Amino acid sequence: MAVSTLDPPVRGKRGESPFVREHVLDTLGKRILAGEYPQGTTLPTESQLCTEFGVSRTAIREAVKMLAAKGLVVSRQRAGTRVQEIDLWNRLDPDVLGWMNAGAFDADFARGLLEARHAIEPAAAGWAAMRATARDLAAIEVAYEAMQAAEIRDLAACADADLAFHSAILRASHNPVFTALIGVIGQALASSFRATTSVSKSYVESLGVHGDVLEAIRLRQPDLASERMHALIEFAAQDMRIHAKKQIRKR
Amino acid sequence: MAVSTLDPPVRGKRGESPFVREHVLDTLGKRILAGEYPQGTTLPTESQLCTEFGVSRTAIREAVKMLAAKGLVVSRQRAGTRVQEIDLWNRLDPDVLGWMNAGAFDADFARGLLEARHAIEPAAAGWAAMRATARDLAAIEVAYEAMQAAEIRDLAACADADLAFHSAILRASHNPVFTALIGVIGQALASSFRATTSVSKSYVESLGVHGDVLEAIRLRQPDLASERMHALIEFAAQDMRIHAKKQIRKR
Repeated sequence: MAVSTLDPPVRGKRGESPFVREHVLDTLGKRILAGEYPQGTTLPTESQLCTEFGVSRTAIREAVKMLAAKGLVVSRQRAGTRVQEIDLWNRLDPDVLGWMNAGAFDADFARGLLEARHAIEPAAAGWAAMRATARDLAAIEVAYEAMQAAEIRDLAACADADLAFHSAILRASHNPVFTALIGVIGQALASSFRATTSVSKSYVESLGVHGDVLEAIRLRQPDLASERMHALIEFAAQDMRIHAKKQIRKR
Repeated sequence: MAVSTLDPPVRGKRGESPFVREHVLDTLGKRILAGEYPQGTTLPTESQLCTEFGVSRTAIREAVKMLAAKGLVVSRQRAGTRVQEIDLWNRLDPDVLGWMNAGAFDADFARGLLEARHAIEPAAAGWAAMRATARDLAAIEVAYEAMQAAEIRDLAACADADLAFHSAILRASHNPVFTALIGVIGQALASSFRATTSVSKSYVESLGVHGDVLEAIRLRQPDLASERMHALIEFAAQDMRIHAKKQIRKR
């Protein structure tokens, strides 16, 4: 074929850093989540992707396999690689959530995450009140103190401490399904911290409520712990409503 | 090297059916979930796996990439492929749940799934009561009628209809996070149908309650829909308690 001289190398595994491979995967993942490769359409061919990224076929194939493992694409011999329907995506996969977060704010999904947090986290707090060991309590307390100690301009420190607090409670529920949802809750928190320059007024106001949740878990009061966790998530909901309003105003 | 003649072919892609590749992935996944390859240990080498399965290196690499995409293993150059800590597994991935279900009954995880269903499904039923379209209602009704029509000895038909019922309600919540949890709920249902020869007494008794949930969603009564969904999951909990007792008695 006339274009054979332009064909990327088929070998070329050695010398390609894992970082480059991760970049290929991340870029393709973000494009699919952003709808740049719409559902039902076919990805560019291996050759095209090799040329674009300047990597080996092996690297492209590897990325496509990873995307397939997460339900985003399906490869058929000769028919190429097709983007699957959104219902088949494993949207709770940590990478997929990350790719979604990297794109434009998806109000529908953010609302869904908030509703899911309202369903899951108060239940987890209730179980934590029944099952938390002293070590679990210590982990929640450390995170709470980190939230208090963080400068409110240090957004990363605030976000990290907040995530550590909620993760520690999910872990203290001693329920492997709730623990497996830490990634989902974490992405919900990360997206609420995104696109702001300093933490919100409601974050500061909610600090005390975090302490109240810890205290209810410590005193083994499941109903109170659940109720206070509901109140906590309401603070996050307020932020989102403000955020949504700002987005509307911008238009 | 002396063993070079025994080395499996490095090419050999063509002629290997996708079915064979899936078998490799499934087998390795099940072994990890069953603890045959314990956390923190290294998988057999590519050569060993090629020999065992009689497939190409490409097929083994492909399977390992898929396992890595689900958080089960991590590959490091020269250090081989290591099984990750259980906290890093993507345990809500449909394949991972399936591999777990294929192994010995994990009472801890089953209890976790039931608690998660208690947290998630009543909330989803509440949102469904607020948001379900007439088409959503029709889908729930079709599943309900299939549950009623299924012979109680036809376990597969009962399980399919039951899953369709719960999936239709999660979809009717119009929350993309709840929809993404259909796979998790489905595996929970599948595991409760497993290892029985006919459906349980509580399944038959719960039929009417299914109709009551549908009616509450239809009448746009979120609190009633949530409450009745709680009652439904209590029937499943009863089955699990009986099942757990039987397991203990067997010892």
